[in-house]
Amino acid sequence: MIVVDAMGGDHGPGPVVEGACEAARVTRAQLELVGEPSLVEPLVAKFGDPERRLRVIPAEGVIAMDAKPRVALAEQPQASLPVAARRVADGGQRYAMVSSGNTGAVVLSCAGAFKRIPGVRRTALAAVMPTEKRRGEKDDPFSLVLDVGATLRVDAEDLATFAVMGSTYASIVSKNVSPRVALLSNGTEPTKGLPEIVAAHALIRDLPGIRFIGNIEGLHLPRGAADVVVCDGFTGNITVKMLEGIFEGIVDMARYAQRSKMTWRFGLWLLENGIRRLKEVTDWQQYGGAPILGFDRLCIKAHGRSGARAVRNAIRVAERCLAQDLCARIEDGLRDQKAERADAS
Amino acid sequence: MIVVDAMGGDHGPGPVVEGACEAARVTRAQLELVGEPSLVEPLVAKFGDPERRLRVIPAEGVIAMDAKPRVALAEQPQASLPVAARRVADGGQRYAMVSSGNTGAVVLSCAGAFKRIPGVRRTALAAVMPTEKRRGEKDDPFSLVLDVGATLRVDAEDLATFAVMGSTYASIVSKNVSPRVALLSNGTEPTKGLPEIVAAHALIRDLPGIRFIGNIEGLHLPRGAADVVVCDGFTGNITVKMLEGIFEGIVDMARYAQRSKMTWRFGLWLLENGIRRLKEVTDWQQYGGAPILGFDRLCIKAHGRSGARAVRNAIRVAERCLAQDLCARIEDGLRDQKAERADAS
Repeated sequence: MIVVDAMGGDHGPGPVVEGACEAARVTRAQLELVGEPSLVEPLVAKFGDPERRLRVIPAEGVIAMDAKPRVALAEQPQASLPVAARRVADGGQRYAMVSSGNTGAVVLSCAGAFKRIPGVRRTALAAVMPTEKRRGEKDDPFSLVLDVGATLRVDAEDLATFAVMGSTYASIVSKNVSPRVALLSNGTEPTKGLPEIVAAHALIRDLPGIRFIGNIEGLHLPRGAADVVVCDGFTGNITVKMLEGIFEGIVDMARYAQRSKMTWRFGLWLLENGIRRLKEVTDWQQYGGAPILGFDRLCIKAHGRSGARAVRNAIRVAERCLAQDLCARIEDGLRDQKAERADAS
Repeated sequence: MIVVDAMGGDHGPGPVVEGACEAARVTRAQLELVGEPSLVEPLVAKFGDPERRLRVIPAEGVIAMDAKPRVALAEQPQASLPVAARRVADGGQRYAMVSSGNTGAVVLSCAGAFKRIPGVRRTALAAVMPTEKRRGEKDDPFSLVLDVGATLRVDAEDLATFAVMGSTYASIVSKNVSPRVALLSNGTEPTKGLPEIVAAHALIRDLPGIRFIGNIEGLHLPRGAADVVVCDGFTGNITVKMLEGIFEGIVDMARYAQRSKMTWRFGLWLLENGIRRLKEVTDWQQYGGAPILGFDRLCIKAHGRSGARAVRNAIRVAERCLAQDLCARIEDGLRDQKAERADAS
């Protein structure tokens, strides 16, 4: 069962319900839409649910996109987001959640309602970053980067946990049997970086079932040297947002480099379609949003700006993760790791 | 006097001596070239020094680009880099240094030979990052980012010191009377980020003579929202290198987005010249390399790959900083800041 926060997002329930209706047609998912029935039900009627896969679960109001998460959740325990999270928690292992709401509030709602997987001390929000290189059976042109903001400061154990979680998720979502995992640092040598990076390098190198390729530098990120990039949430947040800013501004930058030239303008005009496609390649919404990893339930956080397509893709990814038992596999991976280390010591 | 490490860099003394000879012709700088006389002197003869502004200072050997800095400097105290640093230290306030050698060894040589400016606890390596927006009298299309690797972990006081140093440097190099200074964080709110960022925000806000525009996110970096971006060396290193990787790979990315289309190929061909210019805009070598700030002597670290033009520009920047008394102005700025805080408390 995929429980969708029908009210979150920059554009209100419209695109969320539309995306859920599309998902109900193209996937086998059972869906619950959590929100104000007076708003959500007419939208379901409008976009259609011929196979009756959607059910509306009532909730009161919405956590605003710019609200302070902790305050808003305390004041609005019946808003769509916390109601959805509790529903997933109570529903059991076959439940997952999708929300395009306030990121901080989504992470906090999960923390309030879900349990951490045994062995996980810190959870991670993972994002996809467009790269030159493609990977996996699905030929995905992105790396998974985690954490990008759930845990700003980490220790070596946290980074090793992120490596296991990210590798498991990437293997399911990109159908990549053995994703290459790297640590982001300021140098490729194992001894380079903050003390926790150096210690994490030694830990991850010895993890069973993880294809660790060592440290990578910022230079290697856009090239796609790794399928899974492990870092603290502060650094991850800044790099992922920076890339977003670059692609948004790329046309302007090109233009100002040679503003006056007619051939340049004509060239840009010819490329317009290509640039749009480049934007699509870099558009992480099409990859179903950002998973929050480390809880016993999966939550996919779709971008606040998500349209129906992004919501539909987020639901699809959530469904695939449920089908492949993501959370159980992460738990197994972490258990193997502990066992290996106990054997070694 | 500009003391140039003539041996450092990926391409040996050739481009360094060529750049120094060019600088001797186009600037008023007096120059010393530190290196093996048997290698350096013939190069000076080749590239020419008609006004006799260059003097060769003998040194033995070179710190290799891939050497471990601490080990190499202990083993080769007479190599060009440490000899140059000691010469600048002994020469006095009117001396500055330029090197395109091993970055870690350059920073370490400075730390060994120079004193920190009173009030500076941690030094910073600053880099320029290309942006859409232009700034200053010189219309420079870059932001100054510091630290990018000298100090991986910082506290709030360090960040405030970086703000003063970066603002002073930018005002001289970009002829920007009042550079906008920002803190790099994972959100724009003053309360967002690691504890040291939140504390630094409160400190920098109250600095006299600093035009603080608050926190910026990764998204704002390529747009050029700030003239001076303050961050820890780990984050700065990764963001600056990432941008380098993006521009190196941009044409490939564009190409693969629409590989088959003829119009796309034709468009790219028309843009070739523009793309080359775009690369120039993003080529920080033309801005004279990266200053190491916080010591009582200035050192400009040029990229290891520097050609003659980059070396010449680094010498020019060093000369301008000497003419404008950069180190004394940083010291004044830090003193004002302490005085202000003492008054306030």
